[in-house]
Amino acid sequence: MELEKDNYSNHISHQFNEELETIRTQMLTMGGIVERQVNDALEAVLGGDVELAETLRQLDQQTNSMELMIDELCITIIARRQPAASDLRLVVSISRAVADLERIGDEASRIALQTIEMGEGSRSQHGFQEVRHIGNLVRDMVRDVLTAYARNDLEMAYRVAKQDRNVDQEYRTAMRTLVTYMMEDVRSISSIMSVIWVLRSLERIGDHARNLAEHLIYQVSGTDVRHQSLKTMKQTVREETGGQPDPQDTHEE
Amino acid sequence: MELEKDNYSNHISHQFNEELETIRTQMLTMGGIVERQVNDALEAVLGGDVELAETLRQLDQQTNSMELMIDELCITIIARRQPAASDLRLVVSISRAVADLERIGDEASRIALQTIEMGEGSRSQHGFQEVRHIGNLVRDMVRDVLTAYARNDLEMAYRVAKQDRNVDQEYRTAMRTLVTYMMEDVRSISSIMSVIWVLRSLERIGDHARNLAEHLIYQVSGTDVRHQSLKTMKQTVREETGGQPDPQDTHEE
Repeated sequence: MELEKDNYSNHISHQFNEELETIRTQMLTMGGIVERQVNDALEAVLGGDVELAETLRQLDQQTNSMELMIDELCITIIARRQPAASDLRLVVSISRAVADLERIGDEASRIALQTIEMGEGSRSQHGFQEVRHIGNLVRDMVRDVLTAYARNDLEMAYRVAKQDRNVDQEYRTAMRTLVTYMMEDVRSISSIMSVIWVLRSLERIGDHARNLAEHLIYQVSGTDVRHQSLKTMKQTVREETGGQPDPQDTHEE
Repeated sequence: MELEKDNYSNHISHQFNEELETIRTQMLTMGGIVERQVNDALEAVLGGDVELAETLRQLDQQTNSMELMIDELCITIIARRQPAASDLRLVVSISRAVADLERIGDEASRIALQTIEMGEGSRSQHGFQEVRHIGNLVRDMVRDVLTAYARNDLEMAYRVAKQDRNVDQEYRTAMRTLVTYMMEDVRSISSIMSVIWVLRSLERIGDHARNLAEHLIYQVSGTDVRHQSLKTMKQTVREETGGQPDPQDTHEE
């Protein structure tokens, strides 16, 4: 009897493990799609590639559906498995993460829309250097935070969060430059406004990458670091990684 | 014995009911604070009231803390009470709602920042009519969606979601007008850019009010209406309110 009971509980736990692994994998898959959307959005806007931008607009629905699907899986796991401690944190963190991923997808789609509105014609080249520069920064943030999720790497997550401050600074500088361009060349105001919206979307993608980093830190450490200073966040990460657990061992029973 | 058991389960259920009522009340309290922030932000920007704007900036921390506190309560309830069905939906919906409320607070704070940057001096009056008009629309949306939450009124929530489409339309029209103003008066480009950021924040507040409406519809009906068309949303609401339950009876056991 005792053996049977053990088998049963192992079976349950095994299934539960698989379910948790499924939502984690699905989230990372969604992350990969969103990462590609950001790359494509940058390629489209920098190359004036309206066709690529239009394809991107059509793909937005895909990440919307994935958000709903993964969120439903999360709620089902909560209802059926009644997870506690780190299991519950994993589910909550993934649910929060897919919301931010979906919003990154939205911003990529907005960049595509601006690309379409600018058209292939005579585009002002004002601000494109800024788009390339800030675009590279946030593209790396998205890539790195997804790697941090794949490896449960809190130090890496912290570096992404820290990088967001640089992005915000570069963004403010770029805005001032663009306003100067507008004053100097009235005819380019419309096209510079499009560039401004692109930069705004990039800056928002940086915010969401930082949010993703915060969700991972919460998931692993149990400390909700949203709205905290970088210093507090760093301390949380250091305390956690001082006695860093096996990255494979994220599932308490 | 049977009586004792009943008493016990009533007692547990009573405490549980109280906990659910607590997070609901806390969310509505936070909603009230955020609603006032939106009103104050509008008053500050339209009246050029830098002092009010500065007070508002300092209060942003309050809604940040409330988000964390309510979210922690939600997670504690999930871990301890293992809610199912409509109880779980209530907790999930409140957790999502506080995230949107916090973001509305952020946007109000951004409007305050723009007010401070514009200063009390010689402000361009371009675009203020648009700010007043769109500001009134989104202020009403925030008020109405909170009333909808207080009354579990899905029809009202649907009307808020529908109104967001008007806000988006008015926003696009306002943007075109403001770009024209910039072309006509180069010296006012900087101050018009501030107005553009204010309008952008208002448009985002409208989006979050729509999100809040969607969370309430999910909570009551069980259908996740995010990323759905207004038509699908309307159908969900009609199906639910066709056999409208007692608004007091939101708690299944």
